[in-house]
Amino acid sequence: MVSTPTLPAGSVGHVETRFADLPDPVRLDCGRELGPVRVAYETYGTLSPERDNAILVCHALSGDAHAAGYSRTTPEAGTRDGFGAERRDGAAGRSLGWWDGMIGPGKAFDTDHYFVISTNLLGGCRGTTGPSSVNPATGRPYGSDFPVITVADMVRCERAFLDTLGIERLAAVAGGSLGGMQALEWAVLYPDQVDAVVSIASTHALHPQGVAWNMIAREAITRDPAWQGGHYHGTGRSPDAGMGVARMVGHITYLSAPALADRFDRRLQFTEDIRYTIGEPEFEVESYLRHQADSFVKRFDANTYLYLSRALTYFDLARQHGGGSLTRALAGVSARTLLIAFSSDWLYPPAASQEIEEALRDLGKPVEYHLIEAPYGHDCFLLEEAQQTPIVRRFLADGRARTEKPS
Amino acid sequence: MVSTPTLPAGSVGHVETRFADLPDPVRLDCGRELGPVRVAYETYGTLSPERDNAILVCHALSGDAHAAGYSRTTPEAGTRDGFGAERRDGAAGRSLGWWDGMIGPGKAFDTDHYFVISTNLLGGCRGTTGPSSVNPATGRPYGSDFPVITVADMVRCERAFLDTLGIERLAAVAGGSLGGMQALEWAVLYPDQVDAVVSIASTHALHPQGVAWNMIAREAITRDPAWQGGHYHGTGRSPDAGMGVARMVGHITYLSAPALADRFDRRLQFTEDIRYTIGEPEFEVESYLRHQADSFVKRFDANTYLYLSRALTYFDLARQHGGGSLTRALAGVSARTLLIAFSSDWLYPPAASQEIEEALRDLGKPVEYHLIEAPYGHDCFLLEEAQQTPIVRRFLADGRARTEKPS
Repeated sequence: MVSTPTLPAGSVGHVETRFADLPDPVRLDCGRELGPVRVAYETYGTLSPERDNAILVCHALSGDAHAAGYSRTTPEAGTRDGFGAERRDGAAGRSLGWWDGMIGPGKAFDTDHYFVISTNLLGGCRGTTGPSSVNPATGRPYGSDFPVITVADMVRCERAFLDTLGIERLAAVAGGSLGGMQALEWAVLYPDQVDAVVSIASTHALHPQGVAWNMIAREAITRDPAWQGGHYHGTGRSPDAGMGVARMVGHITYLSAPALADRFDRRLQFTEDIRYTIGEPEFEVESYLRHQADSFVKRFDANTYLYLSRALTYFDLARQHGGGSLTRALAGVSARTLLIAFSSDWLYPPAASQEIEEALRDLGKPVEYHLIEAPYGHDCFLLEEAQQTPIVRRFLADGRARTEKPS
Repeated sequence: MVSTPTLPAGSVGHVETRFADLPDPVRLDCGRELGPVRVAYETYGTLSPERDNAILVCHALSGDAHAAGYSRTTPEAGTRDGFGAERRDGAAGRSLGWWDGMIGPGKAFDTDHYFVISTNLLGGCRGTTGPSSVNPATGRPYGSDFPVITVADMVRCERAFLDTLGIERLAAVAGGSLGGMQALEWAVLYPDQVDAVVSIASTHALHPQGVAWNMIAREAITRDPAWQGGHYHGTGRSPDAGMGVARMVGHITYLSAPALADRFDRRLQFTEDIRYTIGEPEFEVESYLRHQADSFVKRFDANTYLYLSRALTYFDLARQHGGGSLTRALAGVSARTLLIAFSSDWLYPPAASQEIEEALRDLGKPVEYHLIEAPYGHDCFLLEEAQQTPIVRRFLADGRARTEKPS
């Protein structure tokens, strides 16, 4: 990490994605074992001599290990295009981390205090082993031979990865959306190893409409003939058409209707009057969506989309750990929990965070729930840094105060 | 129309779809002329000697001329499967009209008083000329050579069709969704020929999120290689895969999230535990959506879907008729207007009906707006017959009282 005078204040500077090979296979919920497993990761800040200041940040469906700072590197495995193309800085092809506004000196996850670790999750396509990685049994990419994974599998993989860094306990585990699911799963699977959980714009189980949107996105990919049953690698064809549709569906569910109206209204793309076209974009919102789809398919693997989408629809703390009861599922949690939801988020609506809050409160566990009024929908967790930052900083500072008191 | 003892009370009985050939081509907004044009239609009730009791009912995107009663007929043009497969009555393959709960003796559109006419709209695939009809210039189906049509074009076609029946004035024009758009367009285009408008779950212009959903549905079809640029007829292939995705997207937008949760929750399809599958339906809601998609593609033409979807996103009364002002657009309306919206409809939200109400009220025009509390989303206009019926009956009775008073 090198700091240069051209970097804005609060930046962690230039970073590089690194890779760790897990010593053992990962045992999966589906009954299979997966190995070898490589994990792509980045770190920001400095690990304390006591190794007690590590925060694991978990990304959402389309994220990667590059959470903060500027990167010039491109992880080789599984990517089909430049890293973070949509976030690329104008100057020198530098690409900004997906949660840069939240991670850095003086930011929500303050690298003056914490050693922040970000990994690409299991099943990913940005350096961690996933469906586009080489299957040692065949010498070719797994494709749909990759085992079906769960959020718990991702967390087990993260646990094994932290072992390679010699980190036993986490001061916190944090994430938004699918990342927030991982944070909650950490608190349940490893209650003695997590001091605090920060779960943002997330849920204990996606509601049926969210299940439906994810199913439609997956169908858009698997119905594309270029998907070829999942074995498109090396064929010269890939299901870009279906992936584009999947991304467009996802994109609209990440935004709120008022945010779309504010930004695009019903403005036409090129002329003052309609052009009477069926297939071409006519409204600005149509053109925007097509652009989002085109840039996404260049940087993301379709199978990874399928596997992660399935994992997040399967995620259900009550079913997995509580025999149907969320309270029972959370009974063993010992971490302090911070839940943040956004008023306009209809994909991961505030009600789900409130259900988690109530269950933890019934159990007498320390929990805070904050509802942030913000208009952008689910994407607020990536955009509303100003409102999230003081909440997260104070929550983490409370944790430091507790650990310091006894000494 | 034959009444049999087995029919439920209030049924218009057995009906047959008939066809009318327009004597002249239809002049379209895009500047082209379309001809010959055939219109599929059904009628219920009896036309009065004064010809003053006709009500035109306009259907939505996936509807057809078969609005009420039982049909054993299958219109030939453009259909690829049995008529109204989803509404098929268990007995004898009889299929029930899409608005049967609203049309019949004693119902909202009371055939004891009114002569109700329902047509398949221009561009349709259920008997009226559309993209799957034969292009006289080539002897083959139009496909994407069919001209791009607007809601106003549909209304001009309906006007020309009513001329063939010798009907000059309408006691009312009514419809939900895209049908409600046609009703509003009638009031603007032919102010002297419409006594009353009933526009349900509709809008003066679809909001940007609705534009986006429609664009995604169209992209799902046009990205399917089997679409073949719109010329799939006679090739042995059709874009069923993409159409299925389009239908699934549409279907979710027609329902509310709470309605989906009520009906499906997160119940699994086959077993008590998940089966770790990427491509197969696992949750009941996934299986339901796939079934909806499969049955829809059997009965609907993909190009018709594209053309109607485009027409309803283009529809914008303020842009078309008011230079951007809805009030100016409605200035010439002389019909009484009834607007009904549903609390849970997020695709055609109540706000749009309220905007129409305000514009008409500012102009001093007679208008009623009713917000119905109902949980099913946009599909309420097809499902909430019990709450709509008294509102529509009283509104239409007021009209009869007015016409009877002067005499």
